[in-house]
Amino acid sequence: MSKKGNPTQPTSRADKGRLTAPVSTNAPAVILVEPQLAENIGSAARAMMNTGLSDLRLVDPKEDWLSDRALAMATNGEKVLRQARRFDTVEAAIADLECVYATTARRRGMVKPVMTARAAADDMRARSADGRKIGIMFGRERVGLTNPEVALANTVVEVPLNPEHSSLNLGQAVLLVGYEWFQAGYAGPGVVMSYNHTRPAANEDMVGLFEHLEKELVNCGFLRNDDMRAVMVTNIRTMLQRAELTEQEVRTFHGIIKELRYGRRDDRPKRQPGYREDDV
Amino acid sequence: MSKKGNPTQPTSRADKGRLTAPVSTNAPAVILVEPQLAENIGSAARAMMNTGLSDLRLVDPKEDWLSDRALAMATNGEKVLRQARRFDTVEAAIADLECVYATTARRRGMVKPVMTARAAADDMRARSADGRKIGIMFGRERVGLTNPEVALANTVVEVPLNPEHSSLNLGQAVLLVGYEWFQAGYAGPGVVMSYNHTRPAANEDMVGLFEHLEKELVNCGFLRNDDMRAVMVTNIRTMLQRAELTEQEVRTFHGIIKELRYGRRDDRPKRQPGYREDDV
Repeated sequence: MSKKGNPTQPTSRADKGRLTAPVSTNAPAVILVEPQLAENIGSAARAMMNTGLSDLRLVDPKEDWLSDRALAMATNGEKVLRQARRFDTVEAAIADLECVYATTARRRGMVKPVMTARAAADDMRARSADGRKIGIMFGRERVGLTNPEVALANTVVEVPLNPEHSSLNLGQAVLLVGYEWFQAGYAGPGVVMSYNHTRPAANEDMVGLFEHLEKELVNCGFLRNDDMRAVMVTNIRTMLQRAELTEQEVRTFHGIIKELRYGRRDDRPKRQPGYREDDV
Repeated sequence: MSKKGNPTQPTSRADKGRLTAPVSTNAPAVILVEPQLAENIGSAARAMMNTGLSDLRLVDPKEDWLSDRALAMATNGEKVLRQARRFDTVEAAIADLECVYATTARRRGMVKPVMTARAAADDMRARSADGRKIGIMFGRERVGLTNPEVALANTVVEVPLNPEHSSLNLGQAVLLVGYEWFQAGYAGPGVVMSYNHTRPAANEDMVGLFEHLEKELVNCGFLRNDDMRAVMVTNIRTMLQRAELTEQEVRTFHGIIKELRYGRRDDRPKRQPGYREDDV
């Protein structure tokens, strides 16, 4: 069991520029109503730690949230478990909160706003930034929240999933709702190019490479047909431009051309323009 | 263990209007590279079923993906496990794919686009709609993907999480990436109001309620101070407007006013304007 707690993806402190976001203050509380299994409390705590949540409130939990089974599932979330608070009733658990979101999988006969997890996360961020105390309620593993419990909440949250197979376990539900909370605070780019001690090639680097390649392709006979030459050159340049080479890769490519053309032969030129031989 | 597989949130077929999306064709394949534990393969299969993915490919798995432990974690994902295919190498598993995304938690010394799970999902949707065959690779539980394996992918995917606690288990990683794939196909509203056999109150319903309430508040003496009356009326109307009452609730409110004012007393009026007594 504890082996499953091992990280699939270890984090290095040296990973500069990772796509992440700071953990915010005034994050929502997570209220688990009558959780049945210690493992599920543990995995909820792990998901909370992953997504920057720390205030765990347990309403009449049926097993010990500091048992070995809970701690094994929690891994890094142990701190969350140790700070968790137990309450007898939902009313007591949410007494200090100003806005409560109830996660449900089925519609109740209540006139209440229903939000996707993503829309709810935006709503939570706006209220949190405004200083409001907020919380997210999750129901029992088998039967969810009762209608009187949902009635205590301001808003219902649904997670859009495959309509034929939308059931989640408790830890997964906390992970997805917490994930959306965390993403709503992520202001970084969606896509970056990772450059490792190098930089994108400048256009003059590319032209130098094209000219070197085309000269040797003429010399070796590949571009011997004058009629076709212009089309071939355009196609080759298009292909190489699309690769968005770095300046390091341009130098490597110069070396590849030279070695393919001359190998260790006697007519090997001393240098090619645009690269230093010792770079390759 | 199998109890954990029980749904926390049962789905009813009667839940019309749920915030969900259809499962699309040409969804990404999921490639698990040397998964160590049957439970993790099972929970990945469950996450795939939740998020509309079905093509599971296993590269040299270390345990039986149809074992009891795998099936217990998979719950609804059993179908995915039964259709899963085993491959000896990553190269064989992705041979037919035209674009491969590699999930990693640490930056490698490779010049490659790095996308958040959300940006990657948009990218996948665009390619999928264009008929491209795509896949998402997940590494071993402890050590992830090797650099040569990442080099086979077109794009790296990172999940932005708490930088101090970003480790996910395999099932959670598949759930979050699959969840983003599914959300990228969700075209529904972020927020809806659930009306249960009723409709929002029209403005004339509200004015009728205000006039009934204010008349009785004058009669009972609450609005006896003429100087304050206009301010009080404005505040009361503001409070009630904010509740966005339904027409059913307006009728209930008429009944509440009447009963609070007259109870079973002899001076109880036969009717109030704007509601039918038998509605309440």
